[in-house]
Amino acid sequence: MGKLFDIALLVLIVLSVILVMLESIATISKQYHNYFYIAEWIVTVFFTLEYIARIIVIKRPKKYIFSFYGIVDLLSTLPSYLGFLMGGHNLFFAIRALRLLRVFRILKITRYVGESHKLIIALKNSRPKILVFLFAVLIVCIITGTLMHLIEGKESGFTNIPISIYWCIVTLTTVGFGDIAPITPLGQFLAGLLMIMGYGIIAVPTGIVGAEFSKSNEESIAKNTQVCPHCNEEKHLSDADFCHNCGNKLNE
Amino acid sequence: MGKLFDIALLVLIVLSVILVMLESIATISKQYHNYFYIAEWIVTVFFTLEYIARIIVIKRPKKYIFSFYGIVDLLSTLPSYLGFLMGGHNLFFAIRALRLLRVFRILKITRYVGESHKLIIALKNSRPKILVFLFAVLIVCIITGTLMHLIEGKESGFTNIPISIYWCIVTLTTVGFGDIAPITPLGQFLAGLLMIMGYGIIAVPTGIVGAEFSKSNEESIAKNTQVCPHCNEEKHLSDADFCHNCGNKLNE
Amino acid sequence: MGKLFDIALLVLIVLSVILVMLESIATISKQYHNYFYIAEWIVTVFFTLEYIARIIVIKRPKKYIFSFYGIVDLLSTLPSYLGFLMGGHNLFFAIRALRLLRVFRILKITRYVGESHKLIIALKNSRPKILVFLFAVLIVCIITGTLMHLIEGKESGFTNIPISIYWCIVTLTTVGFGDIAPITPLGQFLAGLLMIMGYGIIAVPTGIVGAEFSKSNEESIAKNTQVCPHCNEEKHLSDADFCHNCGNKLNE
Amino acid sequence: MGKLFDIALLVLIVLSVILVMLESIATISKQYHNYFYIAEWIVTVFFTLEYIARIIVIKRPKKYIFSFYGIVDLLSTLPSYLGFLMGGHNLFFAIRALRLLRVFRILKITRYVGESHKLIIALKNSRPKILVFLFAVLIVCIITGTLMHLIEGKESGFTNIPISIYWCIVTLTTVGFGDIAPITPLGQFLAGLLMIMGYGIIAVPTGIVGAEFSKSNEESIAKNTQVCPHCNEEKHLSDADFCHNCGNKLNE
Repeated sequence: MGKLFDIALLVLIVLSVILVMLESIATISKQYHNYFYIAEWIVTVFFTLEYIARIIVIKRPKKYIFSFYGIVDLLSTLPSYLGFLMGGHNLFFAIRALRLLRVFRILKITRYVGESHKLIIALKNSRPKILVFLFAVLIVCIITGTLMHLIEGKESGFTNIPISIYWCIVTLTTVGFGDIAPITPLGQFLAGLLMIMGYGIIAVPTGIVGAEFSKSNEESIAKNTQVCPHCNEEKHLSDADFCHNCGNKLNE
Repeated sequence: MGKLFDIALLVLIVLSVILVMLESIATISKQYHNYFYIAEWIVTVFFTLEYIARIIVIKRPKKYIFSFYGIVDLLSTLPSYLGFLMGGHNLFFAIRALRLLRVFRILKITRYVGESHKLIIALKNSRPKILVFLFAVLIVCIITGTLMHLIEGKESGFTNIPISIYWCIVTLTTVGFGDIAPITPLGQFLAGLLMIMGYGIIAVPTGIVGAEFSKSNEESIAKNTQVCPHCNEEKHLSDADFCHNCGNKLNE
Repeated sequence: MGKLFDIALLVLIVLSVILVMLESIATISKQYHNYFYIAEWIVTVFFTLEYIARIIVIKRPKKYIFSFYGIVDLLSTLPSYLGFLMGGHNLFFAIRALRLLRVFRILKITRYVGESHKLIIALKNSRPKILVFLFAVLIVCIITGTLMHLIEGKESGFTNIPISIYWCIVTLTTVGFGDIAPITPLGQFLAGLLMIMGYGIIAVPTGIVGAEFSKSNEESIAKNTQVCPHCNEEKHLSDADFCHNCGNKLNE
Repeated sequence: MGKLFDIALLVLIVLSVILVMLESIATISKQYHNYFYIAEWIVTVFFTLEYIARIIVIKRPKKYIFSFYGIVDLLSTLPSYLGFLMGGHNLFFAIRALRLLRVFRILKITRYVGESHKLIIALKNSRPKILVFLFAVLIVCIITGTLMHLIEGKESGFTNIPISIYWCIVTLTTVGFGDIAPITPLGQFLAGLLMIMGYGIIAVPTGIVGAEFSKSNEESIAKNTQVCPHCNEEKHLSDADFCHNCGNKLNE
């Protein structure tokens, strides 16, 4: 019963987000304006009822209201009311898309959360290294951006330093929109250097996280093991019943 | 003899796919229209005969007909007949290109399949982690896409949320077509953040798969070791003296 | 007290760099010209006083003046004076942005430096491999660039070899601006080969650095073990009972 | 003496390649036409003399002439003579750029070759896996390319299947020129899927090569070790003098 409700809620959240998306397309929005209006009302009322029900049912309502998911739940309903009152939709679009975050709470029950937990731990462990790396990338971007602004001048889009830094980030991350591109030989040479450098250093975050995953893999193997009571040998296979070193029974 | 047939079939499959490609080029298609017509007939007849021969020869024809390769074989012949009957080619183009999938069946006999098997296993093991990751990427794209639509407005291509999400995917995956690009300072700032984030998280799938490959390498080392003479247990640690399953001595 | 000064200096450095950036934007620069002039004076005077104070306080001023940070400190003040004297700003822009490098000295005290130290060591160890790799990439770019210049001719932007090499670097590093793109079928075929090759070899630097990180992780495990009480040897294997250097028992 | 000659030759090779590059720039080529003519003669005569000298000095000239470097050496001189005779430069440009390959022979003596040897071995070991991977990528590109041609039609550059496949390669490798980009919602949706897939599978070659490097690192550690003559313990540290397991001397 609870599971059925979760699935229904999941479908409704996804539908409401698709609704917000479709509404942003001008041609569709105009043609089916009334349908969107009604659908938005239904979704909002349902979410409001659910929000109130949660507050009533839950033991410590205060803790829920000020928790991350509590605020997300409130923000799933409030913008619609404000939008209806004030008419201007645009300001509340982004907030309504936050409804998607509610999906996470429902997915909590699935087996994928264990995996995402591992992912988050590996990322947390490598965070200081990645922060140092991103900081170094930012400084490279600021200095190269200033140089590109000086070299390329105002002819080819590098009109000021912030936009040149933006171009450096676009280039170093190998995105490369092409809306701004160097046209002087010296600018192209510097851009080439920047790209080859970017190619060389893209390895760094990958290496960091990869090593972290390898470590966590090894540790999860190690966690499964026990120490042999006879010879104190460690690091047995996870399904071992007998010590591989002295042949005595483990876990007696 | 069977090998010769396989090679001939391989060449024919590749040729028929090249034929489909060349036929799609307007100038070539008009000039050599008759040749394409004849070549298509020859290929189709040959594939049809091969398909019928397989059904006759094989022990359990039903199982073959409804297997993956059976359907691919049927789809290699049927669209041509339908195309000849109805005249409209375009609808059957994509299906005819599926002929290429037949290549896999023939390549099965080569040593590369062992390698692809390892690849597939490593990918399967890391699938839950990659799915969680891709789901997180999608949510980031939806929220950033909505924000970009609000910031950039209708001036620079971010005309609706779905197209903004499309732009976010293009940017986060570091493809960067440049058909849509932010022009407001705030939009460029958010784009810069998105790119640096994308640069930092591109490490995640790489780390996952890399760790998986390392693990499968290590496991293939574990496999190198002896079988227990008492209980036939495999997969001992490389330095094991006693079987971890029955406790008897290895290598007596 | 010293920490407070460091934080104040950090804020001032970041502010002065933001100032340089904003000044480069034509519209802002014109409107707030006087404010920028005053702010620049304040920052410059402060940095000059700090520079002089350092020389007075420090024991070996000569060593400081000619050290990396000494030169950076000097370059944080000098360009402003030269700019005030000569009027022309542009020439001194890049040098003023170097102020950002001062940030590193202050950040030295934070815990992130340990991480960046590990990063730098891993990069240093993999430097010869990465240099060989980048050299190979450069030769591929020169040869492919020449071929593209010959194939594409002067129709589509590949007007000379240096610019074709620039395009090859842009493509191989997967940046892909799109300011230059092949239009002949043969050129597009060669570009396709180059891209798939680039996709295959992007793995190389990542693999190098990743393996280096894994190694440094393993070594840091080795470091966790005991010091030999007889010869003070460090870095034993984690399961060592006897010192590998003098043969005496560990952990008696 | 031999080393000095090598360095002189290295400089000459690099200079001759830079010459070829500069000559391809129309404005420079016209202005300094005579200088290029003379420089080309000098380089060609020098390379010819060196080539003849090698044939005379070497013991088995036949083996040299038909070796890889022998052919490269011949191709460094011949195109210039043919160019002088026939006037048409363009045809011989690419071949002249091959002079750069001569650099490798000279660099053979440096310490970097050991590193490149390791790189090549790691790449060779992971070649079958990478080939399988690239083959799968190619099939994905052919099928998606055909689909995109059908969906996008002739409005947005996907005019035939080969060019659509070219676009798929550009997109899947995350290059993204933007010369061709989908404009229909369905095409953009398929492109989004392709990109996210490309993002997920970029991990594969990286994982393969990374695991290969890790393995070769571990093996190079293992190679340094010896078996203890007293307790048969393996896997000592590379600088171990005594067995860490029984405390007896190694390598007596």
